Amino acid sequence: MITLYTWTTPNGRKPAIMLEELGWDYQVKGVNIGKDEQFAADFLKVSPNNKIPAIVDDEAEGGPLSIFESGAILTYLAEKSGKFLAPSGPARFKALEWLYWQIGGLGPMLGQLGYFANRAPEKVPLAIDRFKDECERLIRVMNGRLAEAEYLGGDYSIADIACYPWMVAATTMLKVPLANALERAPAVQSWLERLGERPAVQKGMAVLQS
Amino acid sequence: MITLYTWTTPNGRKPAIMLEELGWDYQVKGVNIGKDEQFAADFLKVSPNNKIPAIVDDEAEGGPLSIFESGAILTYLAEKSGKFLAPSGPARFKALEWLYWQIGGLGPMLGQLGYFANRAPEKVPLAIDRFKDECERLIRVMNGRLAEAEYLGGDYSIADIACYPWMVAATTMLKVPLANALERAPAVQSWLERLGERPAVQKGMAVLQS
Repeated sequence: MITLYTWTTPNGRKPAIMLEELGWDYQVKGVNIGKDEQFAADFLKVSPNNKIPAIVDDEAEGGPLSIFESGAILTYLAEKSGKFLAPSGPARFKALEWLYWQIGGLGPMLGQLGYFANRAPEKVPLAIDRFKDECERLIRVMNGRLAEAEYLGGDYSIADIACYPWMVAATTMLKVPLANALERAPAVQSWLERLGERPAVQKGMAVLQS
Repeated sequence: MITLYTWTTPNGRKPAIMLEELGWDYQVKGVNIGKDEQFAADFLKVSPNNKIPAIVDDEAEGGPLSIFESGAILTYLAEKSGKFLAPSGPARFKALEWLYWQIGGLGPMLGQLGYFANRAPEKVPLAIDRFKDECERLIRVMNGRLAEAEYLGGDYSIADIACYPWMVAATTMLKVPLANALERAPAVQSWLERLGERPAVQKGMAVLQS
């Protein structure tokens, strides 16, 4: 059985979508980051970086295995199942390119824009403009890719699963600053609709929401 | 033959270190980001996200293959060579955890601290403190890991290769804001010395510097 430690954030939803796609049994343990539960000693053993998501797989090869970092978790689940990531060849690295692009670019930049545009105690135009410009650029790049391919890696993969919850955040919490960029990204919009119709994506996005 | 498109930045140095570790023949094409060469049409075909590093492997399985995103490049080279990343099991995912931790955390946060502390046209305490606090936390987490393991993944791996140029940047360009955090991270200091003694690391760090 896999235990998923998570919360209702974009990163927290990625492994839930993946586990739903695989149809595997798993249990969810909520780690309420609003109450600083990510700093509890028990959770630190699983996730030394104090962040959700993390998993523990009791049935891993060689004994129970804990994994933190959403990109590592998605890669683990893809390699264990043999699904949503080609085992070798160009298709594998097209998917990994876009997975790393999400982890190193889209996620951190949308995260910082969310802070400076919505939550910071003061409005700092220098910071808001910096992250808005970079998010707009990233959305243009994503639109270019999705204008030539149905999914980021070619076939549906963990790259799409990683980007989806972040792009949903972009179209909801960041709707105002990113309105123009999103309007000019029709291929991203179609991709959002295509993914949003998948039952596993719907279930994964609803984790811990009841 | 592998062609490496790169520049003298932390991300740009990672694949150079890896190629030096492997002892493979490769040619370097400088993409001068100070002159906006990353926006040239030819480079866009290789790296649609307009960023270095990227590689083209003329001898990839199935024909020439281009790869962008430093994490994807390191994974490709590790899997092609069978070196610096275990093919399966716990050791593989320990290394991937810390590789993703660098890509999604250490890199972006040090990058933003570098901008707001050193290069921004005005000093914004809210932004400087935000990124300084997060970098200090990440250095504490890294120190905790390196106090229990010689290398981030246990054995020397692409996780260390990814973190090294960023931690060198932390100890040079960000020496002032991060002085206290670095002083309290002896295990990180020893790790920096251990890596700095490797000839391949020295050669990779010197790419395009002559």
